[in-house]
Amino acid sequence: MKREIRILGIDDSPFNFSDKNSTIIGVVMRGGKYIDCVLCEKITVDGNDSTSICIKMIKNTRHFKQLQAILIDGVALGGFNIVDINEILKEIKIPVITITRDEPNLDKIKKALQKHFDDWEKRWEVVSKGGLHRIKTKHNPIYVKCAGLPIEEAKEIIKLSTIRGVIPEPIRVAHLIASGIKRGESHGKA
Amino acid sequence: MKREIRILGIDDSPFNFSDKNSTIIGVVMRGGKYIDCVLCEKITVDGNDSTSICIKMIKNTRHFKQLQAILIDGVALGGFNIVDINEILKEIKIPVITITRDEPNLDKIKKALQKHFDDWEKRWEVVSKGGLHRIKTKHNPIYVKCAGLPIEEAKEIIKLSTIRGVIPEPIRVAHLIASGIKRGESHGKA
Repeated sequence: MKREIRILGIDDSPFNFSDKNSTIIGVVMRGGKYIDCVLCEKITVDGNDSTSICIKMIKNTRHFKQLQAILIDGVALGGFNIVDINEILKEIKIPVITITRDEPNLDKIKKALQKHFDDWEKRWEVVSKGGLHRIKTKHNPIYVKCAGLPIEEAKEIIKLSTIRGVIPEPIRVAHLIASGIKRGESHGKA
Repeated sequence: MKREIRILGIDDSPFNFSDKNSTIIGVVMRGGKYIDCVLCEKITVDGNDSTSICIKMIKNTRHFKQLQAILIDGVALGGFNIVDINEILKEIKIPVITITRDEPNLDKIKKALQKHFDDWEKRWEVVSKGGLHRIKTKHNPIYVKCAGLPIEEAKEIIKLSTIRGVIPEPIRVAHLIASGIKRGESHGKA
């Protein structure tokens, strides 16, 4: 695989309970080395619009035709605003990969959805669909879901776009931006 | 010089005439390769606070003690909110370098200051102080002012933190972020 493939990484900003919206940041990189572009949109905290707004962000960038993979930090953005990676794949025809450091606790997620959302079954269906892969790294393992490509190819994309640690640069940088613009100084890890 | 020295690059967001504030973004990088941190503050469009807010941004980051140079896009941020690099140097004791692609038209700046600001003499004194260096590159020349280090060392810092083109990565990335969060997609060059 070419090392300089264009990858878009997406992460959301931290938010307070009183916030209606969360900012999502997209970063277009060549492999894990060079930043081409920064994208910015708003989604509703705990809303239902993260999938459609990711699709809009991806389709609207002038780099759309060059993109070869979308990497998203986790299975939801802006709280429980669940991202449907199969729906994104269907619309944009580019492979989509979600990555988390911690193993998603599906039992806990299901209970929280049941408690807080009338449409919990719809959200749960998206969250629980598709296989979760535990990927070993030199450091801690990461947890990956993917749509539109085999897990072996997803691993290769993750590897070529990771510089230090376990999180690919497009997601790590999107996290630093989303966190920095909200808090004044970026903190924490994607 | 060590290639991975910590450098902070600062640029401002584009703004409309009706905007009271402009966002400034700081990016801490190791050389031109790895982003450590993203910082964010607000300054007043055409105000007098860019110097004090840059000082605050620099002093408040947890990377302050590691920083070995501050790179700023141009001699003013947020319109005619002039940055006093000697004042920054005095407060933080770290070399400060400003960089522009275009040769500042001092005559035009002076006339604009005279036309729009009661305190134009104070602003003009800061803008016109210190030597402007025209630096040749493989591509177009750049125009540089510096405080706290000889121009030869400033050149070395610019060289080691530039990957493509003529603008050092910490400023280029700060520009992409500042532009992307304001416009939805980053455009133009620092």
